[in-house]
Amino acid sequence: MMTDRGSRAGLSPGEMARALREFRAVVGDAWVFSSEEDLTLYRDAYSPVRGEADERVASAAVAPVSVEEVQRIVRIAARLGVPLYPISAGRNLGYGGSAPVLSGSVILDLKRMNRILEVDEDNASVLVEPGVTYFDLYRFINEKNLKLWIDVPDPGWGSLIGNALDHGGGWTLNPFRDHFGAHCGMEVVLANGDVVRTGMGALPGSGTWQQNRYGVGPFIDGLFAQSNFGIVTKMGFWLYPAPEAFCSGEVMASNRDDIHEFVRITAQLANAGIVNSAVMIRSPLLYAGLRDADTGAALASSDRQSDAEWNRIARSKQLPSWATTLHFYGPPAVIAAQWEHAKQRFSVIQGIRFEEGPRYHFPLAQPNAEAVLDKSALGIPNLSVFSMGARSENYPDPAVGHLSFSPIIPMSGAALLQAHRVFASAVREWDIAPLGFGAGFCMYPRCLVFLFTLPLSQDESHNRRTRAFFSHLIKLAAQHGWGEYRAHPLFMDEITDVYSYNGHALRRLQERLKDALDPEGILAAGRYGIWPQHLRSGRG
Amino acid sequence: MMTDRGSRAGLSPGEMARALREFRAVVGDAWVFSSEEDLTLYRDAYSPVRGEADERVASAAVAPVSVEEVQRIVRIAARLGVPLYPISAGRNLGYGGSAPVLSGSVILDLKRMNRILEVDEDNASVLVEPGVTYFDLYRFINEKNLKLWIDVPDPGWGSLIGNALDHGGGWTLNPFRDHFGAHCGMEVVLANGDVVRTGMGALPGSGTWQQNRYGVGPFIDGLFAQSNFGIVTKMGFWLYPAPEAFCSGEVMASNRDDIHEFVRITAQLANAGIVNSAVMIRSPLLYAGLRDADTGAALASSDRQSDAEWNRIARSKQLPSWATTLHFYGPPAVIAAQWEHAKQRFSVIQGIRFEEGPRYHFPLAQPNAEAVLDKSALGIPNLSVFSMGARSENYPDPAVGHLSFSPIIPMSGAALLQAHRVFASAVREWDIAPLGFGAGFCMYPRCLVFLFTLPLSQDESHNRRTRAFFSHLIKLAAQHGWGEYRAHPLFMDEITDVYSYNGHALRRLQERLKDALDPEGILAAGRYGIWPQHLRSGRG
Repeated sequence: MMTDRGSRAGLSPGEMARALREFRAVVGDAWVFSSEEDLTLYRDAYSPVRGEADERVASAAVAPVSVEEVQRIVRIAARLGVPLYPISAGRNLGYGGSAPVLSGSVILDLKRMNRILEVDEDNASVLVEPGVTYFDLYRFINEKNLKLWIDVPDPGWGSLIGNALDHGGGWTLNPFRDHFGAHCGMEVVLANGDVVRTGMGALPGSGTWQQNRYGVGPFIDGLFAQSNFGIVTKMGFWLYPAPEAFCSGEVMASNRDDIHEFVRITAQLANAGIVNSAVMIRSPLLYAGLRDADTGAALASSDRQSDAEWNRIARSKQLPSWATTLHFYGPPAVIAAQWEHAKQRFSVIQGIRFEEGPRYHFPLAQPNAEAVLDKSALGIPNLSVFSMGARSENYPDPAVGHLSFSPIIPMSGAALLQAHRVFASAVREWDIAPLGFGAGFCMYPRCLVFLFTLPLSQDESHNRRTRAFFSHLIKLAAQHGWGEYRAHPLFMDEITDVYSYNGHALRRLQERLKDALDPEGILAAGRYGIWPQHLRSGRG
Repeated sequence: MMTDRGSRAGLSPGEMARALREFRAVVGDAWVFSSEEDLTLYRDAYSPVRGEADERVASAAVAPVSVEEVQRIVRIAARLGVPLYPISAGRNLGYGGSAPVLSGSVILDLKRMNRILEVDEDNASVLVEPGVTYFDLYRFINEKNLKLWIDVPDPGWGSLIGNALDHGGGWTLNPFRDHFGAHCGMEVVLANGDVVRTGMGALPGSGTWQQNRYGVGPFIDGLFAQSNFGIVTKMGFWLYPAPEAFCSGEVMASNRDDIHEFVRITAQLANAGIVNSAVMIRSPLLYAGLRDADTGAALASSDRQSDAEWNRIARSKQLPSWATTLHFYGPPAVIAAQWEHAKQRFSVIQGIRFEEGPRYHFPLAQPNAEAVLDKSALGIPNLSVFSMGARSENYPDPAVGHLSFSPIIPMSGAALLQAHRVFASAVREWDIAPLGFGAGFCMYPRCLVFLFTLPLSQDESHNRRTRAFFSHLIKLAAQHGWGEYRAHPLFMDEITDVYSYNGHALRRLQERLKDALDPEGILAAGRYGIWPQHLRSGRG
């Protein structure tokens, strides 16, 4: 099926040459790329099919510098039937990089549109173009000495717009760390070249484009996230007014079945806004098992162990069964009271332990900022996550990339235990060692992401097996009601396929929207399982 | 134009009779209403055109009890071309009540679908049908003794779903008081009778329908707010875990030009989540002017007064120029620290004064709850807002209803002053006395709503003038970049018309969506300026 799709860009060499000529007339010769060397940069560096027939590759790339150029390119593409694949900064490693879903597509690379158009310090918002990265905005804020914080994903080199549109998230407070949820106002070029501003942006001279996201009438912004209905050329974001201070604390529970009360209290504190940072609920015991042969052996069948056995190992290793790190941001007296309250709430769990973490007062002097261990928690963009899977004592055979598996599971101890059991058993059965296994992230509010990654290698047979395992995981998760929130293009059909209520009513609706908004089917064919009409019949 | 539209329901008496026969076969004779007496209940009690030719009236009403019945009714309507106007509980006074935008429409009354389907106390969420009101949910929570709070609008008799879909808001914390923003998951019946579940609801057995709103792919929920693209039959909402305590405080500034710093600090505290309640920035001096002839005379031209003159009156009357009430919810030590911090921040304004407000510890005993003055601030549904415009010492000639004018203005002192000047001058020019004039509500985060209402009477000539003034206000606001977030059906075309960027690109897009989702144009024709193709040509 994939190979089939990959070859279906549908233009003859002559037609493509004509399209590129017309694109050059819009952006200039320097900004249309079609050499092998140039196109290599658009290949997915973490591709699970790198070098294989199934790899999705672009036929060319075009990089406009303005909305007007985007409009003209889109009109040419609609007229000539050129499949476009818009990207912002083109990162998104682990979820497909900058390679298209449909091989042969022309990458519409928006990196040159990299202006920070407006910053409102008093009301803490920003309006940016797609090429603006978290590093760019952080640098800009520092240079201007603005009292604003940004929320950054791991890693921070990506585009604010690109990350938000793929539903990326970060580590600081709500609502900022849900990057799409923290947006306010869009400008979108539609497949017919028309340009739309949403919310208050539709009202000339409103001054509230970044203040009120709804405007009047239907709120259409969500249509343009994880879709192929339009090209977002501007987007506003709400920022966090620089806090006065930060404190953090570790909460650790001894016994396996403490997890129920542990998650319940965490959820209540988070839902009440008392703990407002991203929370990762992890098992230090299981982590030790991944690193240390002795603990690993003891835990080899942890998913089948009784609570008593598990607790015995935890005690003998002097490791908590569960732990989480809480971050607090704000005036010193407020955050001290929040942390005290959290400790008091968790104290109903027998044997619960607390450990005070780092405390900071802001602004940090620059050298101090560099020394901070957990930069993401302080809204400082960084690339330290790339150490994951790199050559180290633990991973002598480094990965050349990874696939991120990101199922959403309920925010409950029962779900977390069950996810651990189900996936641990699958991992043992397939004998594949994931990275970062066993934690539930509360990146979005109210639910957990049971995220882990599968390392890729230069060995095609290993990658083939990993892909088969990934497909297995998607089905296994769906059997338990867990669906992925995001995925690599290679698996977009499979992960959207399990959202099947009422004969895939949601997808049928999405396809009707696709046909209405992009009748020629030129935008990002296949993105998140949405295909234009002429390619739809090929779907499983 | 309006009369024209009002008569365009387009069915002959025979066709309508056939439709009602078919509807009766679905819901039973008792649940199709067509007598004059029954239809009176669906008239807008606050209509600005009551009894006039322009009044929008229904031709019949049908009240299904289940999603399946809704699907069957919609399929009949699509086949026979019957315009439907779906309502939830049918309140929304000031914004049109339960009357249709297009006269002759059949009201699809969802009040019988009034089940509270699921409540998750641990993760603080609820799944309801359209007929569930704030009173219903409050009673349910109290009876079951659940540790959950709801956010209620003024007044509390409406439907959670209806209010959220019209972008209603309340008075407690973010994100709960943005009622649409606090939703999670929808079930929608489309115009073709298909039923769609959004977000994680599309994944059978997910258990996270009310935990993760995005699911995977485009996030389409916004399409169904303030639109006519589908009929929402279920909707989830996030609730607030019952807080431990409440405290409040009044902040008062002396001088007129304190407003700049006053709003700046309020915004920063709100954007940082330190002040998390709805904030109303009001002028006690102006309010006194509305009530007291002496102050009123002194302020008669307040919009043209110099700051010095204004300040002199404020001093002589011993009234603050500006004031706001801050509400804090949470653990006692946390909210005490938040209020202390707020006071410290506001203290940079010379002469600022603070007054401690009520403090409560929860749960309140029921008699105490009844005695609370500001019930909405504590999430207790009530109807006290209906005293507005009633016969009183201040309003000896009571209104028989009102029109709500709700422009969004920037969150800044300059915008608030300018809005006051512009609208005060219009009010003087037209000699029309609005209710609740002069305050900026931060109901939604990050912006202000400069909401005031125009009283209606039993005198048609008064109402005619009021309508002309309302149309004038819409245009006047738009000249300053202020647009309404919500409106009475009579003015939906006018208020959406000012959202005109790029030749009404947004509306053109909405119309394409309308044509794709409701090709027969049977759903809520004209709602928020979106008309089906066959009625579109009539628009201004």
